[in-house]
Amino acid sequence: MRLIVIGGVAAGLSAAARARRVDAGLEIVVLEKGANVSYGACGLPYYLSGRVRRAAQLIVYTPEYFAKERNIAVRTGAQVVSISHPRREVVLDGGERVHYDRLVIATGARPIPADRALAALPQAFTLHTLEDVEHLKLFLREKRPKRAIVIGAGYIGLEAADALRRNGLAVTIVEQSPHVFGREDVALTADVRERLERFHVELRLGERADDVDGYDLAILANGIQPNVALAADASVELGRTGAIRVDEHMETNLAGVYAAGDCAEAEHLVTGRPAYIPLGTTANKMGRVAGANAAGRRERFSGIAGTAIVSVFGLGVAVTGLSEAQAQREGFSPVVARITARSRARYFGGKPITVQLVADARTRRLLGGTVLGEDGAAGAINVIATALYNRMRAEDLQDLDLAYAPPFSTVWDPVLIAAQQLSKMV
Amino acid sequence: MRLIVIGGVAAGLSAAARARRVDAGLEIVVLEKGANVSYGACGLPYYLSGRVRRAAQLIVYTPEYFAKERNIAVRTGAQVVSISHPRREVVLDGGERVHYDRLVIATGARPIPADRALAALPQAFTLHTLEDVEHLKLFLREKRPKRAIVIGAGYIGLEAADALRRNGLAVTIVEQSPHVFGREDVALTADVRERLERFHVELRLGERADDVDGYDLAILANGIQPNVALAADASVELGRTGAIRVDEHMETNLAGVYAAGDCAEAEHLVTGRPAYIPLGTTANKMGRVAGANAAGRRERFSGIAGTAIVSVFGLGVAVTGLSEAQAQREGFSPVVARITARSRARYFGGKPITVQLVADARTRRLLGGTVLGEDGAAGAINVIATALYNRMRAEDLQDLDLAYAPPFSTVWDPVLIAAQQLSKMV
Repeated sequence: MRLIVIGGVAAGLSAAARARRVDAGLEIVVLEKGANVSYGACGLPYYLSGRVRRAAQLIVYTPEYFAKERNIAVRTGAQVVSISHPRREVVLDGGERVHYDRLVIATGARPIPADRALAALPQAFTLHTLEDVEHLKLFLREKRPKRAIVIGAGYIGLEAADALRRNGLAVTIVEQSPHVFGREDVALTADVRERLERFHVELRLGERADDVDGYDLAILANGIQPNVALAADASVELGRTGAIRVDEHMETNLAGVYAAGDCAEAEHLVTGRPAYIPLGTTANKMGRVAGANAAGRRERFSGIAGTAIVSVFGLGVAVTGLSEAQAQREGFSPVVARITARSRARYFGGKPITVQLVADARTRRLLGGTVLGEDGAAGAINVIATALYNRMRAEDLQDLDLAYAPPFSTVWDPVLIAAQQLSKMV
Repeated sequence: MRLIVIGGVAAGLSAAARARRVDAGLEIVVLEKGANVSYGACGLPYYLSGRVRRAAQLIVYTPEYFAKERNIAVRTGAQVVSISHPRREVVLDGGERVHYDRLVIATGARPIPADRALAALPQAFTLHTLEDVEHLKLFLREKRPKRAIVIGAGYIGLEAADALRRNGLAVTIVEQSPHVFGREDVALTADVRERLERFHVELRLGERADDVDGYDLAILANGIQPNVALAADASVELGRTGAIRVDEHMETNLAGVYAAGDCAEAEHLVTGRPAYIPLGTTANKMGRVAGANAAGRRERFSGIAGTAIVSVFGLGVAVTGLSEAQAQREGFSPVVARITARSRARYFGGKPITVQLVADARTRRLLGGTVLGEDGAAGAINVIATALYNRMRAEDLQDLDLAYAPPFSTVWDPVLIAAQQLSKMV
């Protein structure tokens, strides 16, 4: 019995490792087209900024580790060019055919291609792989660029802007949509703009960067799209988001073929519909479920709330669930409470923290939240994400028994203050 | 229509302020026996340590503020000596009688009395009020004690030990029970002991301090007990914990008489039974509900999980719900998962963090958790507390969509790692 996993980063390796734990006797082969497996792609901006000093710090596990400790064969440089499900075979670029009994597709995502002329420029870079960052670092050392344009204000664009500014470059961010961080949220965008401007980063929203004249470095960070060609060619069904459609067991329309991570959809906990919000945390969770089920279990994945956080020059910007605008579009009747409080006692260095909560006026159900602060943003957004998972109502949220002592928090946690505000409105 | 509130600290003032918001026309009188109202009692240890420099920093609001901004009459030095509910009157120590239509009892708690001979010693102090701390600070300045004994290893004892050590004293903690922080938890106690010993604080458990020979300072921190004499004398019913019994509306057995804060019980979310876990956060929440209902609303308080956190020489020690031993005694079949992970990426200064989760093997329901770490303890315990509120099961907990980026966390949040472990055990 052989399990083939296509892709050796977050979802693929989570699947392989979990499958091994479920079935010690299963043959498991991971096929990774790149040179490295299991690296912390989320750490790439910090390798760029210099906080991570050596690329090796980003490599979590090596193929040797998987072979020796987990009895999992990991082949790097192994590019799958087609899947023949009727034959239960994958075909590698050298022509080699590998049989499978179960298959996990974890082909990830790639940057949305920029305009071809733009992408061809010698000063244009994406920040998707370790190699990308190595190339950029070399460029920074050799060409000493002074002015950078970052195209896209999603988390990669924001992190890149931060990293480049710390390297001493002048930075302009240009984003097509009127919002940052992929979040239709006017208040959040205003706060992020203020932060960027304080650090002398120019933010231009609602603009397309057709050329990059006047900049000696361009970062292409227009977002990512799922790698689905391999799957689609093998008649694996795609969902309306364009990513691979899976059920709650991470199984595709083909029996015994699973998909997980940045190439696949996941059910959104708030809307109940499939969504495409590719993130490392989700990839790992989906991978675990895909791996367990490929090895014979019958586990389910509950879905995602779209929780994410990014540091913008030390300001934690965190989101979960739906923004007001998204909620409106999904047919809810959103009301919004927004408060600014202090993260902990003033004499313990507490900082301002802003919590915004969105609820549905009809059902009183919490729909989403955003948190901005130099301190405590992750803790607060996680409470809101846990509340979303449990479909909490506005008025229940204010009763949460959260921890307090002056070194850690304030007697009224900012989430509770926002919840009190919210429950007056629904 | 007049509302009388007995007690002007956390619960009493929350009740008064909330009642005012509900009913602008209500006459509201707060009777506080002490000299100050609305001070942050939880900040007292930090006034002792010197981090809070002036007592004024602990005073949140003054009687003048309440009179002017909220139209609430706050009388300090007003000691109520009896309540006559048939007459709807409270009697002050000078003999004055004040009529009420609605009454909120927020008489708080006081230190459990130490042995009389001990308490009478000139070097013995409690740390319950601002006056207590002022006296102790004067003693420290004038007598320059070198060796302190702290009797009691609850949060007040632990914070006092930390504060005194920072003032240069040699410190020994003596605790009657075999545990610290009021938590029957062997692992937690071992970790706290290790921390204390690293900072040269001696911890002696399972011992009574019958005398304090050899110490020139003694802190009496044996815990606190509810102030219920006034209520009990007026035929307000007490619960089995010894605190005032209230329903979910914070109403006592006497119609129109409410109780809130450290003098009252609250329903424990996990056991479903009344518990006495006096904390400032709970006092404020209960106070709000009591105030709203005394002013004519019909709100309910969901109950408490017993969430608490204390800093022991920089180590965050946080608990919520039941420990294994408590769960056993409550008739559950507890299983325990305990993991140590990292609070955030190593290159962002991540620290070890230990998460312990307790679940019921029969129902798979989460029953409690403890978290220990220099970083991230509050955030993690709050997620667990939110999970407890929602009666989450072990296997659901691992699907929580928590935020990740290297400056804030790790791709597998420590709570999720513990949840994975736990779900294998139930």
